[in-house]
Order: sequence, then structure tokens, then C-alpha cells
Amino acid sequence: MLALVKRERAPGMWLDDVPVPAPGRSDVLIRVLKTGICGTDVHIFSWDEWAQGRLKPPLVVGHEFVGRVEEAGEAVSGFQPGDIVSGEGHIGCGHCYYCRTGQGHICRKVEIIGVDRDGCFAQYLRMPESNVWKVRPGIPHEIAAIFDPLGNAMHTVMAQPVAGRSVAVVGAGAIGLMACRIAEAAGALSVVVVEPQAHKRALALRMGAHAAYDPAADGWFEKFIADTPDGVGVDVVLEISGAQQGIHKAFDMVRPGGEVALLGIPSRPVTLDLSNSIIFKSVTVRGVNGRLMYETWYQCERFLLEHKLDLSPVVTHRMPYGEYQEAFRLLRNGDAVKIILEWDA
Amino acid sequence: MLALVKRERAPGMWLDDVPVPAPGRSDVLIRVLKTGICGTDVHIFSWDEWAQGRLKPPLVVGHEFVGRVEEAGEAVSGFQPGDIVSGEGHIGCGHCYYCRTGQGHICRKVEIIGVDRDGCFAQYLRMPESNVWKVRPGIPHEIAAIFDPLGNAMHTVMAQPVAGRSVAVVGAGAIGLMACRIAEAAGALSVVVVEPQAHKRALALRMGAHAAYDPAADGWFEKFIADTPDGVGVDVVLEISGAQQGIHKAFDMVRPGGEVALLGIPSRPVTLDLSNSIIFKSVTVRGVNGRLMYETWYQCERFLLEHKLDLSPVVTHRMPYGEYQEAFRLLRNGDAVKIILEWDA
Amino acid sequence: MLALVKRERAPGMWLDDVPVPAPGRSDVLIRVLKTGICGTDVHIFSWDEWAQGRLKPPLVVGHEFVGRVEEAGEAVSGFQPGDIVSGEGHIGCGHCYYCRTGQGHICRKVEIIGVDRDGCFAQYLRMPESNVWKVRPGIPHEIAAIFDPLGNAMHTVMAQPVAGRSVAVVGAGAIGLMACRIAEAAGALSVVVVEPQAHKRALALRMGAHAAYDPAADGWFEKFIADTPDGVGVDVVLEISGAQQGIHKAFDMVRPGGEVALLGIPSRPVTLDLSNSIIFKSVTVRGVNGRLMYETWYQCERFLLEHKLDLSPVVTHRMPYGEYQEAFRLLRNGDAVKIILEWDA
Amino acid sequence: MLALVKRERAPGMWLDDVPVPAPGRSDVLIRVLKTGICGTDVHIFSWDEWAQGRLKPPLVVGHEFVGRVEEAGEAVSGFQPGDIVSGEGHIGCGHCYYCRTGQGHICRKVEIIGVDRDGCFAQYLRMPESNVWKVRPGIPHEIAAIFDPLGNAMHTVMAQPVAGRSVAVVGAGAIGLMACRIAEAAGALSVVVVEPQAHKRALALRMGAHAAYDPAADGWFEKFIADTPDGVGVDVVLEISGAQQGIHKAFDMVRPGGEVALLGIPSRPVTLDLSNSIIFKSVTVRGVNGRLMYETWYQCERFLLEHKLDLSPVVTHRMPYGEYQEAFRLLRNGDAVKIILEWDA
Repeated sequence: MLALVKRERAPGMWLDDVPVPAPGRSDVLIRVLKTGICGTDVHIFSWDEWAQGRLKPPLVVGHEFVGRVEEAGEAVSGFQPGDIVSGEGHIGCGHCYYCRTGQGHICRKVEIIGVDRDGCFAQYLRMPESNVWKVRPGIPHEIAAIFDPLGNAMHTVMAQPVAGRSVAVVGAGAIGLMACRIAEAAGALSVVVVEPQAHKRALALRMGAHAAYDPAADGWFEKFIADTPDGVGVDVVLEISGAQQGIHKAFDMVRPGGEVALLGIPSRPVTLDLSNSIIFKSVTVRGVNGRLMYETWYQCERFLLEHKLDLSPVVTHRMPYGEYQEAFRLLRNGDAVKIILEWDA
Repeated sequence: MLALVKRERAPGMWLDDVPVPAPGRSDVLIRVLKTGICGTDVHIFSWDEWAQGRLKPPLVVGHEFVGRVEEAGEAVSGFQPGDIVSGEGHIGCGHCYYCRTGQGHICRKVEIIGVDRDGCFAQYLRMPESNVWKVRPGIPHEIAAIFDPLGNAMHTVMAQPVAGRSVAVVGAGAIGLMACRIAEAAGALSVVVVEPQAHKRALALRMGAHAAYDPAADGWFEKFIADTPDGVGVDVVLEISGAQQGIHKAFDMVRPGGEVALLGIPSRPVTLDLSNSIIFKSVTVRGVNGRLMYETWYQCERFLLEHKLDLSPVVTHRMPYGEYQEAFRLLRNGDAVKIILEWDA
Repeated sequence: MLALVKRERAPGMWLDDVPVPAPGRSDVLIRVLKTGICGTDVHIFSWDEWAQGRLKPPLVVGHEFVGRVEEAGEAVSGFQPGDIVSGEGHIGCGHCYYCRTGQGHICRKVEIIGVDRDGCFAQYLRMPESNVWKVRPGIPHEIAAIFDPLGNAMHTVMAQPVAGRSVAVVGAGAIGLMACRIAEAAGALSVVVVEPQAHKRALALRMGAHAAYDPAADGWFEKFIADTPDGVGVDVVLEISGAQQGIHKAFDMVRPGGEVALLGIPSRPVTLDLSNSIIFKSVTVRGVNGRLMYETWYQCERFLLEHKLDLSPVVTHRMPYGEYQEAFRLLRNGDAVKIILEWDA
Repeated sequence: MLALVKRERAPGMWLDDVPVPAPGRSDVLIRVLKTGICGTDVHIFSWDEWAQGRLKPPLVVGHEFVGRVEEAGEAVSGFQPGDIVSGEGHIGCGHCYYCRTGQGHICRKVEIIGVDRDGCFAQYLRMPESNVWKVRPGIPHEIAAIFDPLGNAMHTVMAQPVAGRSVAVVGAGAIGLMACRIAEAAGALSVVVVEPQAHKRALALRMGAHAAYDPAADGWFEKFIADTPDGVGVDVVLEISGAQQGIHKAFDMVRPGGEVALLGIPSRPVTLDLSNSIIFKSVTVRGVNGRLMYETWYQCERFLLEHKLDLSPVVTHRMPYGEYQEAFRLLRNGDAVKIILEWDA
């Protein structure tokens, strides 16, 4: 089969012919239909410091997908050929405290597809049944292909109550944009976004944000604060940029007694004035990672089936897998948000 | 001043001339502008069993109001003449565990205005500063007059998370209708209502309910269940009718692991199959009473200032106070939902 | 193998020779060592109304056990022969919302061993790997045999915070007694018990209860209330008796704003004054069933490994399985609390 | 009256004769009996950078006290001369969202006695009635004098569940020591402490800690981790040292999915590897400040009245107020933990 492979320890990816994986007794073999490209894939393509430390080439990349079940191992009871499926890319050990209490995403032995083991940028993908997710009729394949980042956004928004509260989202990439939509659908009274790129700010306004601030503009922060209830900041900040400035500002933006969810991954340590940012203000900070297995998946499904999440503005490009070089070029330049690679042509 | 007085232990109310109350050092004297009539007031008018057991005439009735500060006692620091105010009618002792932890509504010594002490169906009302609520510009006086029942509805909806969940409201009187609107604004994925009166079902659909069931119709329950996710019931039921049938059905309507909030007051004991209704289903049931003092008041204010709650369909009638007999007649016949009596003409 | 079988639709159980079950690919075959007898088993023995409606004889009875792995199916990855194990008797479908979010105990298709499918009162038991629990060194086999009711008690206590609070337990059978010990270990400031049988009240005092009330004694309730903080009732009531009187009193015993957990199963509907018992008091009521899968199991393990739960007083009798008739006689007469049947002699 | 006064902008404190404050209508005048010296008072004595930025001399210092009501203003309803009282030193505006929802400690206009307005190191103290706390019989005066730091410890422990969990306390000063005792009483399965001073480690073991680690010892961290369940860290870390090293280690000590409460105030910004410390580990961090007004006060009272908190080891010295110079010397050298200054001699 054809697959996008990190063949060697160097920048780039290669479209290689590799063997179709053979499913074990508890595995499902999936014919991949569509895949999403994540920021993580861009790091792998670019072969940055994180990628160099984590990956062991050769490896099939990719973790966002929708596909059709081709074959099910003999101990599989919940799937059969023809089922349309997506899947949770965090594969836990299945036996530890985390795995047995719905927190398999932080299992100490977790392996992530496309990072620690072969992923989904390929014509076929093998996954343990436990991690396969049946896509309900009524959910478009393209959206099913991005349940992974949608789940990141859902997990971040739902990490604290947002109903009846004011919410600020820092960073309007694909996940930040989806978080705007979700926060609005989940009853936030106001949702504002902070994002330096103009085309992403415009998208945020289409995704339910009530205002969008450019952190490069003079006086943006004063204006932001003045617009919050009583001028003391917002109830909830969702930090999805991972940028040093974004993280610093998140703690200025939140009101005393408020809550900050951190999803964006800073590439370096961050220096924080903990006394004034967190302690005197009695702020709660939550590290958010992956998705709850599988509470978050059901939440995504329910919002979608009730037509509460129009995510169409997020998918800015669709291309056949053969054009992956162009796709990565667009993403590295910040010219695209979510690109769907099609494997079913 | 003129006031609607429960003069004696018999059905009816009387428009009497009584002395303007003299405010104490920590009290505020309020010129009443508009008042709402509550179901409780109807019970008092009708002089039913509950009223006979609780009230000690003579008493000025009424607890829903908006007014203007006329005079402030010398120890009052937060209000001055001219301020537009509403107020929390549950007056606690101020010194007990409940009063000092935001639960004054269940203080063991609580007195309710218009029930245990003189109320607001009058030209003037005296209240301790602690219970007076400043109405922010941007909130219509008419809505400020019904912050009390709005707070009941808010407290009931917010007693459990509704964001991303399915909600059923049993009973579409004023509070049930406001609960529909709030649940929808607070991110419920679906809100349905069960109500026997056709005009109230019609109002519920205008207040954000996605469907309205007539419990007198054949097969309504089967249809209701079939419409819920996976056909196992809704995540949350808000019981606001107080009717025996409503309470029974609430436990059939909720899914296993779901939550039921009880606000409606049944007039007699209720026989429940606790094993199948609550225990085997692992249902959580919350008794709801009054409003949190004052978390709920801030929530109401925030939703309104962000224009999330169009409550206009709830106020079906407005009349000068002199027409109170007609107002009570309409309410007793079920022909009105919320009636505003005007004292500022 | 020998097994205690409900052979026909009549009172009694029979020690029969039945085939050893053959484990499927994902199953574990367990050599049973010790089993606990539950109140449910007594209902099955007695063939009461509930048993008649639920069971389909012939069936091997029993759901509390410890054993040693004899054989593991080929798709089993977490167990091998010789492992000491207990197991969760609620076997869910594995694929639904409940099963995938740690609530398999309320799966709509759940089957309970010894009730809906063959159980553990036998020399061998077959279970799916998902439900088998490895017993850590340091946990006595006898205690491992009663993880099921210990889990009921743990789930009931942990259904709400008890740290720094006053707790009353209604009913001092095996689960009630364990709940006393757990509540005390979990930081309750006071734990009292209500129980009509004197020998169980004595056991309760050995299990950490600070006081034990006989509900048949004159004035017990007045004394109970007078002993609570401020004389307004306890923060938390754990209703484990299932008796009509116990349930009624639970709502009198709880303070305004307090919490009631219902685990005991009443055999008939219960008539409650919801207005005064739950609504005006703003009480929260939680139906508790089974154990969280598997959060509760880890909690039990942790308390035991830290030596916080001396459960020895609960096991009042130990007998070889051949003496099961005597065991059931003692239990039906209320002369025993927890009886361990030994299968490893 | 005599009072310890920060007379000028320089190191030291002075025992001065100043006027007895005159109580306003809603104030209580208190004859001070005993006071505790807090680390904050040491900073004020030493006149460090923080003190220089915050204080406006002249000012009576001190915020931990017990006293007897001498006089009550005419609008005071809950106190009378002779009542034994302590008090909450955070005096909020009384009218804002924070003050009206039990969070007056983070009111935007809060004034702290002994910091922003005259405090309790004096023969008399004036306080608004709202902030005065009646001391129940059965609570020793000496303990009532340190309800303020006891409340800090209680608020920190209760900021997340500790029942059935493993807890580490970083820093064994007076608050850290009290936190050990509270965590143990609140049901923590294990409580360990990290503290560089040997005499404080010894006290921690007397205050309920199961183990005490010296962070200057080789290999202490490896030993700490090896001693935690599954060797992955503790469930909860309470950071009470405010030291850079303590804060860094707190995030290494907590397990994935665990919780960190920050009470200690670092004097400089802290550089954190947020990705690995908080985000990938899905850690929750809570800034803790002051005490909940007044939930925390009731919790302290309940634990004490039930005799669950033997705090006697914490009070290492008692002296008449005239010996304050010696008291501060001991504290600055780290030779004392909590010193009680006596004003009732």
C-alpha cells in the first residue's frame, strides 16, 4: 500500500510503498478514506527538536482519519467490514489505573499512532478494537476525519463550566477555532479570541467568536479588559497557542477566581509571576491533553448530531494525498487551517 | 399608603390604606414600581391549606418587585435614594452557617416577605440592605420585577450541568418557561417540555423548547422516549409542575445515570418506586428552593446583560394594581402566565 | 466440578456436579478459592418475589469470590495461570456509552454473574478478561473475596464528600458496617449508625461508629438529632437498610442542604413527603448501584494497602462449601453478618 | 493603649501608645487577649521589598488574634460585650460579586488588617461585625488566636479531595504543619512532608506526617517517588514553602492527572516547564489565598470541636507582648514555628 513515511532522521516525508499491516486477534484493519493534517505532523515533517527526540523512523505518520472497516480480528465483537470508523490515536496498555478509569490518554505506556507506532497517512491502518470509534450516520466523513482535534477542543472547553460565563480563546488555529464554536454552543455568554493572523481572526468571527483581538495592535489588552464584565477579566481562558506571549497574557486576561485551561504546548519553559498570576488571584489552571476516553468522543458526537457545531469554515483545503508536499507548504506558511488529505479517490 | 393586604383568615385580598413602614438603621425604604404575581400569591388569595397553616394575617402580600430607593438607614452604605432595585425576599438571620456561606435561603430562621412579614404589593416596602439588589442599566424594569422567579428557574437549571446535554422541563408555567429559555442559552443540546395546557405549550416553543408534549395525549411518553438519544431518556429533568403525575414521569423520563431537579411543590406525599426510579438507575435528585444568595442573582444579571434571555413571552398581562381582582381571576383559571401589577401609574 | 446450583423454580440450592466452563478467546478460567454470601444470594435461596421475576434456572449462584487463574484465552494479555484474582460481576456489553465511560454497572445490557449467568459458587468460574481484577500481594484472600460488597460500601461513601462532615449510616449489615469503617477512614468527623439488632450495633462500634442507635428505642431520634452539630441533623446519610422506616428516617436525619445516598433496595414503593423531605430542605439524593468500573476497585485497593480498613469484624463465619445449608440458615435468621464459603479445602 | 506599630519606613517595630479606636455603628471593639505572629509580620518587621511596596506607615501590625468584645456599635446585632471572638482579617467592600458569593478574600477592594489598616498587635482592635467570629466554648483561646493560619491550611487541604488519596506537603512551617494534621484527619491515606530544617521535620512527624524528606539529602526524590503508589507520584501536592525549589519539585512529585495547590508565595517569578509539568501530565493547579468567607471558618470549627486536630506541637513559644523583639529574632532565625504574644497579662 502507499503511505506517507518518515523514512529517515531528516526533514521531509516520503510517499512509499509499504506492506499492508496484518490485524491481530483483537485488531481492526481500516481502509483509510480521509485524513487531517495536524500541527504535530508539521513538526514531524520539519524534523524539529521535539520530533528528533521522540520519533524512531521509519514510521508511517498521521493520526486524524476516517475510514471503512476492511477486516476484523477473530476476537473483535463490535465491528464488521463496511463500518465507517474513526479512532482514538492514544493506545494505552489497557490494564493500568489510567486505562481502567477513562484516562487512557495519560497511561504511562501510551503509544500514539503516527508518533510512536505506524499511523493513518496510508491506504490501510491497523488499530486495536478498543480504540476504534463507529461514526454515526449524519456525521459527515470530513468531520469524522478530524474528531481527534475536535476532541482536543471539546476536552479543553469542557475542562471547566463555560455556561453563563465569559470565555477567551488564545490562538485561532484549527483547535482554537473549534473551541470558539464549542464554547458558544455550550452556553458561554461571550467568546472572544486573541490571534495575530488576520485571516484566522476573520474565521474566528465566523466560528462564533464575538470579538477578535490582534495581540500586535497597540492597546488591544486595555480594550479587551474594558470589554469584560466589571473590567476584571474573563471567567475562563483557553490557551491553545502554546506561545510564550499567549501564556503570559492568559493569566492577565483571567479574572480573580477564574480558570485557565492550557492545551497549547510551549516549546520552551515559561517564566511566570505565580504570586500575582495564580496565587493571589486564586486562579485554577488545568493542563489538558488528548481527549477523555471516551467521554469526550460522545460529547463530540452529541453536539454534531444535534447540529450545534458548524465546523465547515475550519476545513480550508482538501487535496488528494499525492499533493501532500503542497499541503505541508501551506501549513508551514500559515496559509491554511485544516487540510484534509483524501485517500479514497 | 395603599397595599394589598391579607386582612383576615378567609379567601380574598383587600386594597387597604396602611402606614408606610419606617426603615431601621440597616434598612432601605423602596418606592414600589412594578410587582409580579406568583403562584404562591394565588394560594394566599385562595386561602388554601398551605396558606392557612403558614400565614398570620394581617399581612401585606407579594415578593416579586422592582422599585426605587426612597430612603436609606444611617448604617446603609451601598444604596442611595433614586437607585433602581429589586430584592431577595428570603431574609435570613445573617449569623448562622447557612447565612454566612451563601445559603441564606435555607437559614433555619428565614422569613419570606409577603408570607412571614410584610411584602411588596404596596406603594412602599422596607428591606434590610443585605437583601436589596441594584438593577443595572440595560435590564428592563419589568424583568427586574420578576428576578425572584427568574432566579428559581436559573437555580433549577444550574443545579447540574446542562451544556451538551438533553433536558426535559415538566410544567410550563412562568418558571418552567423561563427554565426552557435558560437551559437553551446555557448550552443544552435539546430542550423539551411536558405541559397539559395548549397555550403554554405554544409559549414553550417560543421560549426555546424544541418540542412540547401533552401528557394527556395517547402515546406521548413512547414518542418522548423514542426521541431521546439512544432511546434511554434525557440527561436532565427539571420538575417544575409539582403535580403527582409530573413527578412520577420525571423519573421515567431521565436516563440511567441522569439527574432530576425538583422545584415544583407537591401538595401531598408522593409514592415512588425508589428501587427502579432512583437506585438501580443511579439517578441523582436535587431539591431546589429559592435562589443562591447571591450567586444566582449574578447569573441572572449576566445572562440578561448579554441579551441571552428574551423573556418577553412570559409576561402575558400588565395591569394597574387596582385591577388585582381580575388578575387573580385570570391566574386561577390558568388563562395567564405572568401578570405584572403596576404601582407607578 | 461441584457447584451450588439453583436447579429449579423453588426454594433452596443444590450442590450439583456440572461441567467446568470452557473459556473463550477473551476469557479467563478461575479456580475459585473463597466466596462470600450476599443478601442477594439469600433472596435467591428463599426464592422470593424478586428472585422469581429475575432468575432463569438452572444457574450457578454467587458473585463474591477470590480465586486463582487456571487458564487464559488466547486474546487475554493481562493475566496468566497462577494469578490471584477477584472480579467485577457486572458484565456490560463493552460497546455502549456506559461501558466506555466507566459506568458499565448501569449498561442497559449488563449481566450479573450468579443472577443472569453462571456465578462463582463453584470450583471454577469463567469471566471475560475485562472484568477480572488482579489481587495485590498484601491483601488477604478473605478480603479479596468480598471486594464486591466492599465496593458497594466504598461507592456509597464516596458518592459525596464525607471529609470534615458528620455521617449517619442506616443499617449495619455487612455493607453498612464496612461503610462505617470507610467513612471514618475517609475523614468523617463523626459516624453514627442506626440498626435494630443489638449484635450488629456492637459490631458497628468496633467498625468505627462513634454511636449506635436502636430505632426501636423510645426517643432515639430526639437523642440522635440533639447529638448533631447545631441540632439540625447530619451532613450525610447513607441508607443501606432498604427498609421503609429507614428510608423515611434518612430524610429526617439529614440537615438542610445535606446529602442522602440510597443503596438499600426497598421491596415496595415508598411514600415520601418530597416537599419537606427534599425540596424545601434543598437535599441532594443519589441512587447508588454496584461499583464504578473501575475507579471504586482502585479506591478499595488503596485503602487496604495503606492498612486503613480493618474489616475483620465483618466476617463472622467461615465454612467449607459443603455446609452451605447451615450458612444460609444463619443468614436468614440474622445470626451472621458475612459468611465465607471455602472452596479450596 | 499600647500597640506594636510600624512607625516608619525602616526595619523594626515599636511598642507605642496610641489612641483606642472608636467603633462605628456596625463595628465591634475587641479587647485583644492573644495574638499569633505570622511570616507576613516578619516581612513587615524586616521591611523587605514586598513590605516597602505595600505598607503605608504608621500602622498597627498583626492579623492573628483572639479577644473579648468590649463594645458593639448600635447597628451590631450578633455580638455583645464579653463574647470571645476571633476575626477574618480580609475586609472586603461588602457589595461586589466576590463579597456576595463567599469570596470576599479576593474582593478587588479588600483591606487586610495589620497590612492595609490597623491590626491586632494592640490592646484593642476595631472590626466590622461582618468579619468577627464567635469562638465556641471548647476551643482553646490559643487555638482561636491562630484561626487565620489554620484557615489557610484548611483552605489549601480542602481545595481538592484528599480522602483516600496520597498527599505531599512542601514546607513545614506553621501552615504546612497544620496542613499535615488536617490532611490526615480529612482521610488522606498517606501524608508526607518535604522540609529542609530537621526540627520542623520532627514536628511534622508529630503532626501526622508518615514520612519527612530532607530536600538537601542525596537521592531524597528518588526515594520519595519509589514510596508513592505505583511509583508515579502522589495524588495531591500542597506547596506551602513558596521556595523556587519547592515549587519546581511539587510538579515532579505529583502523579499524572494529580492536583497541586499553591499557597506559598514565591518572592520572584518561577520558570516552569509547563509542557511536561502540567500539560502532558494533565495536572490541575489551584492558587490558594486567604480563607473562604466563611465556609473555611466553619470547617476549622467543626474539626476542632470533634477533637480531630491536635495543634499543640505547632505553638512552640508563648511570650508577653513586651518580649516581641525576642519573638521576631527567633522567627527570623527559623528557631520557632508559631509564637503566641500574650496581651492579657
